[in-house]
Amino acid sequence: MRMYDIIEKKRNGFELSDEEIKFFIDGFTSGDIPDYQASALMMAIYFRGMSERETVTLTLAMADSGDRVDLSEFGSLSVDKHSTGGVGDKTSLIVAPIVASLGAKVTKMSGRGLGHTGGTVDKLESIPGYKTTLSKEEFFNQIKNTGIAVIGQSGNLTPADKKLYALRDVTATVESIPLITSSIMSKKIAAGSHSIVLDVKVGSGAFMKDLQSAEILAREMVKIGKMCGRNIAAVLSDMDAPLGTNIGNSLEVVEAVKVLKNELHNDLYEVCVTLATQMVCLSLGYTPEKAKDSVINAIESGSAFNKMKQWIAAQGGDISYLEDVTKFPKAELCYNLTAEADAYIAGFDSEKIGLSAVCLGAGRATKEDSINHAAGIVLNKKPGDKVTKGETIASLYTDEPDCISSAAEMFISAVSYSENIPETKPLIYQVIR
Amino acid sequence: MRMYDIIEKKRNGFELSDEEIKFFIDGFTSGDIPDYQASALMMAIYFRGMSERETVTLTLAMADSGDRVDLSEFGSLSVDKHSTGGVGDKTSLIVAPIVASLGAKVTKMSGRGLGHTGGTVDKLESIPGYKTTLSKEEFFNQIKNTGIAVIGQSGNLTPADKKLYALRDVTATVESIPLITSSIMSKKIAAGSHSIVLDVKVGSGAFMKDLQSAEILAREMVKIGKMCGRNIAAVLSDMDAPLGTNIGNSLEVVEAVKVLKNELHNDLYEVCVTLATQMVCLSLGYTPEKAKDSVINAIESGSAFNKMKQWIAAQGGDISYLEDVTKFPKAELCYNLTAEADAYIAGFDSEKIGLSAVCLGAGRATKEDSINHAAGIVLNKKPGDKVTKGETIASLYTDEPDCISSAAEMFISAVSYSENIPETKPLIYQVIR
Repeated sequence: MRMYDIIEKKRNGFELSDEEIKFFIDGFTSGDIPDYQASALMMAIYFRGMSERETVTLTLAMADSGDRVDLSEFGSLSVDKHSTGGVGDKTSLIVAPIVASLGAKVTKMSGRGLGHTGGTVDKLESIPGYKTTLSKEEFFNQIKNTGIAVIGQSGNLTPADKKLYALRDVTATVESIPLITSSIMSKKIAAGSHSIVLDVKVGSGAFMKDLQSAEILAREMVKIGKMCGRNIAAVLSDMDAPLGTNIGNSLEVVEAVKVLKNELHNDLYEVCVTLATQMVCLSLGYTPEKAKDSVINAIESGSAFNKMKQWIAAQGGDISYLEDVTKFPKAELCYNLTAEADAYIAGFDSEKIGLSAVCLGAGRATKEDSINHAAGIVLNKKPGDKVTKGETIASLYTDEPDCISSAAEMFISAVSYSENIPETKPLIYQVIR
Repeated sequence: MRMYDIIEKKRNGFELSDEEIKFFIDGFTSGDIPDYQASALMMAIYFRGMSERETVTLTLAMADSGDRVDLSEFGSLSVDKHSTGGVGDKTSLIVAPIVASLGAKVTKMSGRGLGHTGGTVDKLESIPGYKTTLSKEEFFNQIKNTGIAVIGQSGNLTPADKKLYALRDVTATVESIPLITSSIMSKKIAAGSHSIVLDVKVGSGAFMKDLQSAEILAREMVKIGKMCGRNIAAVLSDMDAPLGTNIGNSLEVVEAVKVLKNELHNDLYEVCVTLATQMVCLSLGYTPEKAKDSVINAIESGSAFNKMKQWIAAQGGDISYLEDVTKFPKAELCYNLTAEADAYIAGFDSEKIGLSAVCLGAGRATKEDSINHAAGIVLNKKPGDKVTKGETIASLYTDEPDCISSAAEMFISAVSYSENIPETKPLIYQVIR
């Protein structure tokens, strides 16, 4: 078998055989197949697409390229939630304790933030003491005892995907439905959970900018997940504005705690209830109605917040910060951005707001950057809200005076105004199962 | 400027600017742009194509990536002939002396053979003493004094094309009209001749297997050549059967000598008259009628053969081999392939015949292989000819007994028979100016 023939076959619009796909993934992972042949194949796939059978084979070949976590002892109880990435997206911190309090087993291997979206592991590290690395034994004991373990991505999970994604990222071959699908699903398959809920974000701050492409991607991922033998559902949710009010690591933990304490019933709350409901349906087999009632009850009764504390404590975190969120260190500088005229907020460009937060020190522009856990943005207004001249729209938090003006400029460019009440978009577009 | 944006722009179907194309060629030649980005761009161009303006810019950028030969002192008199490659194609050895005998200046930098097609330089080296390398001064003096210089490709001509072609060759991105055009034309532009005649071969032994694609390529090359300021014409000629009767290096020199001595009026003769006529039209400004008469007269009068001897002698070759072609060393083994039944030869698969000759030692399977100048094939029959059982169709020449059976098998598989007189194809399909 020759890589040349595989590229040519796909280029000419033919389906690759399972053997050809495995040959490619094996050879590419080992380094026998050079990057320049892999990128040519990726571009050919960008133009020609892949059948479902090809996508499943690619997904499983990448999942098998490294270690796989074996969660079979938990059956369908093991459940994972994956977001395609958004700004202010702290849903994992909220849904994990909710569904674990109901008896599901939540395991997550989470990435760090890069670019305008944050990473769950970075957010958790703002809680003093929280360990993002566990031994295999600790990991499994914690799942058994508390029902949750959230750690950083381990060394050898889907090395083929890591290498291929890095290549696609510099060769303009990311935007391909079968390639995005196989990249996400291979990681989910390798991470081991039997039940998977995908949170596919749509809008200015999301990878998928329009509803149609997001729906195509969501349907493809659900189909491929099922073909790989998993329980799976996808939620299409809006990311035209950041989710909730807080952007930045400890700021997001604070907002998550408020939701779990039933103190906040905003867009974040709604998205979390929807996601948790789907997770409960898949992992515990509840009807959607019973699942939703149980989720809301878990918040109202305090059992979800108790589960959060149990989980954070198990991973070494100081839960006094959760009990009294004013303990989190504050940023040295706070800059309030005010409205220049009486108007309605028509929209936020979430990507720009995410980049403004990166500017303040809340995220990374490159992998090597360090993070200021206290930096970030708190939104006082959201799209649809009325503002009067001089009223604060958002507060920017940072320790670096030099970055304020460029972060503020970026934020201001993200806001659009309207004289009339703007049309509101749905928060949840669709649930696909 | 970022290579990523250039790939993405082309992937999305937009035209690249001149600056973007030059940025790519400069960066790729210097090694700043890695192969994996270049191959992704090549695949995007395969799918999206290039405008004429883009193709001209790419052609000139590659021509400018290394040295350029300055033949401006000869004006339009400087003329080059380029073949897209065929089996038994020894036309350069014949047309160069014909048109030089009429006053044109023929300069060629020729490649060596690889795969099923032979190289002019290999053929010339079968003449004892022939030097394929000349100093710059020798090269120019020889053009002035004899009107012909044919040398091997020098070190730094179109390095961008060399590097890019090698990459395309292993990433299934060769078959793209703008990329083929810019590759061929950049070499021709850098080689300096003002007048260029392209011999675009069509058929089983050619790069272009069908007439339609060959015509598209020919028209594109003529258009791009003109936009680059050159006098240019293209001849579409048949390569469904090998050209002439002899395949293999000294065997082809022998056949060329026969044509120049006016002893042979076969398909090779006809193609050479057509090509030489076009070269004379472009370089000397003759009408097609006058050009053709002059070409035929140059052969009949012996002036073309005299010019060949003058050229070969100037480059150190022993012309006694041309005066008495029986002096060329013979291969040790001759194997006659005979007809198994009474029939007509319906066709030859030229590529397979070329590969049979490689097998015998006449060509190279890889760049490192050495060549046996005496090895090759002499065809006694051509498509359309009647054969009777036991009659010799071809003679295979080699020094290696081990290769005879596989070479013979390959040759036999290349021949198709017919009970009835087969339809004949035109030898020259079209001249495009």
